[in-house]
Parts: sequence; structure tokens; C-alpha cells
Amino acid sequence: MILHGYFRSTASWRVRIALGLKGLEAEQVFHHLRKGEQRAPEYLALNPQGLLPAFVTDDGKVLTQSLAIIEYLDEIAPQPPLLPSDPVLKAKVRAVAKVVACDIHPVQNLKVLQRLRDLGLDEQAVQGWAADTIEEGLDAVDRLLAEQSGPFAFGDAPTLADLAIVPQLGNARRFGVELRWPRLLAIEAACLDLPAFQKAAPASQPDAE
Amino acid sequence: MILHGYFRSTASWRVRIALGLKGLEAEQVFHHLRKGEQRAPEYLALNPQGLLPAFVTDDGKVLTQSLAIIEYLDEIAPQPPLLPSDPVLKAKVRAVAKVVACDIHPVQNLKVLQRLRDLGLDEQAVQGWAADTIEEGLDAVDRLLAEQSGPFAFGDAPTLADLAIVPQLGNARRFGVELRWPRLLAIEAACLDLPAFQKAAPASQPDAE
Repeated sequence: MILHGYFRSTASWRVRIALGLKGLEAEQVFHHLRKGEQRAPEYLALNPQGLLPAFVTDDGKVLTQSLAIIEYLDEIAPQPPLLPSDPVLKAKVRAVAKVVACDIHPVQNLKVLQRLRDLGLDEQAVQGWAADTIEEGLDAVDRLLAEQSGPFAFGDAPTLADLAIVPQLGNARRFGVELRWPRLLAIEAACLDLPAFQKAAPASQPDAE
Repeated sequence: MILHGYFRSTASWRVRIALGLKGLEAEQVFHHLRKGEQRAPEYLALNPQGLLPAFVTDDGKVLTQSLAIIEYLDEIAPQPPLLPSDPVLKAKVRAVAKVVACDIHPVQNLKVLQRLRDLGLDEQAVQGWAADTIEEGLDAVDRLLAEQSGPFAFGDAPTLADLAIVPQLGNARRFGVELRWPRLLAIEAACLDLPAFQKAAPASQPDAE
């Protein structure tokens, strides 16, 4: 198995956590996002979106989109499960992950911020765009989790929701967002007690700068 | 069951198609996005994101995020299945749906376009932003589907991928995007032969304008 990623890509980070929790080893290939390596023809042949991550299975099948890759891993290696078995709870876990993966990250990723600059917005407006997107999204995550107890987002073990939250908090810090969600910080602390989360952190990757 | 939606919301539209394919009936409650009804306190109590759709189960559980709602429906009413059983193929279907639901729609929804206007961009730049986002995303969808045969996105029956593609094509037309993907148009035509897709179309909704 090969994971194509980048140390700071939150979507790649999610998949690294999943691999660690499942005890799976994948070869890592790094593509430098700021140098545009994700738009190299060889990478576009793998993932026509030119986004990270891409995941290559043992028999050479190429998978894209981090949450789809993680659910694939959850199927081929069911222990420990990353989704609860109850359908309602499962939908709630998926919804929290999607707030991050649909409504925060794609609206404030490198590509979108560069488009804003190209349209003539100054750096303050661009950074404000990112920070506002993150704050609004994490506010929603916090409120969606109000009915759930910890230490993790949904109870006693990490789920797909935690895999989305932890990298997004890391990203929030990079944009100087005030982390005014004690529950989310407690979730992050519980996760960072686990080796899989430690090993997946950007600073632990060989391509970290 | 209650579906909170809006006739033109592509995310609500996806859920309406799923309900139709499953033969499920849900009461529909409409919230006018352009009038900001999704930000009314009563609706925010249901969905703190202030986004459509929200789905209320028979026993009063509230679900959000269209793809999570659709996968819930696929679990409680497994026939006809909206995902293939093979894990690799399932991941590919989910990935196509996520290109639309993560990388196109949230980057060009009403809220984001209004933010661009608020930052001083003129209407041409705003419409260009939406059109570019849609084109780039649908290009990727088209390329991801190159290895799949039809008539639907993944073979002989509609999947989660088709539920994402058809509303996004409708949205593309609204933004004047040239529909230069014969395969995607053929998928749409196959889908629109089915009553579930016809009944879910925006023009068929009671709140259509």
C-alpha cells in the first residue's frame, strides 16, 4: 500500500491516523504542495483532481478522497472500528467528519486562498477568510457534539470524527484561530495520548520542514 | 420522517433522490435559502450549521450532511443499494460523490459567493469563481469515471455518485457552464428516465419559483 501525501495536508493526516489505529503500514510518498508537485503529470495520472492524498492498494487500485479512503481501510481492517454500528450514531459521526472535510477544509485550502489572492484580495482578507471558515465550522462541530460524551468525540474510542477534528485544530492554530472550544481541545488531548495520533502528526513526517 | 430542504439546494436534492429510489416517504419542510430562513433560530436548533438539508428520523433524531443522511437511508432501507459491495468500488463511488459534495458545492454555494461579494468582488468575478469551481470539479469527476462503464456512473444502476452528479449538472447550467462532458450528460439522461430522479428535481418541488 502506498499513501501519497504531504506532511501538512490535513486530509493526508487523517489517513495517516487511520493507518496507525488499524496497525497498517503503507509506504509514504510525499508531494510538496507549495511547490505544486501535486500538479505534476505523473501525479495527475493517479489523481486527476491534483489533490492529496491518493492511496494505492496492494493490487494497484488507486483511491482518492480521504474519507472514502478511511472508510475503505475500516472495511478491509475492521478492528478497531472507526464508526459505531448504530445507524443514527454512524450518521452523526460521518456528519461531523463532513463538516470538516466538506465545509471547512475545501473552502480554506491552499488552492482557494491562492485564488483569492489572484482576484486581488490582500493578505489580511485572505487570512480572515481562512480563519472565519475554520471558526464557523468548528463552532458547528462543537455544537453537534454537545449531546455526546467523551473523552473522544463519540465516547470511549476514536472515530472518523476525531480523525477529522485533530488535523483541523492543527490547521486552526496555523491560521491564528483562537481555540475557544474546551470540548474540542479535550478531544484532541485524548487523541494525542495515542501513538497512532502522535505518529501521524505533521512534525513526525519525514518531509516536515 | 421529515426532510428540511429547499427546492434548489443541490444537497437537499440528493436526499430527495435517495428517498425516491428507496420508496420512502418523508414530510418535506422548505426553508427559503435566499431569504435566509436557514438561519432562523428554530432551524439552527435543528442544524447548528444553518445549512440544508436536515433530516429528522421517525423517532426524532436529527441528521445533517446530505451524504451522511443518504448512507443512513441506505442502511435502514438497503434495497436498492446505493453503494456496491466491493470495498474498492465502494470507495470509488464515495470519492466521486465527495468531489461534488466536498470540492465543488461548498466552494461555490450561496454563502461563499456572498462572502466574495462582501469582500468587494464584482459580479463577473463571483460568477467566474462559481463556474471555474464547477468546471474543475466536473472535469475530475469525468476523468475518475473514465474506467467505468454506463449507463449510470458505475454500471447498471444508480449509486451515490449519480445522486451527486445529477444535481451538480443542474447547478452547472444555472451558472452558464458549458457542459462539455458527454459521459456525464449520458449519466444524467439515464437517471432522468427514472421516476425517483424526476420527482426529486427542483421544478417538481412545491416551493419551486
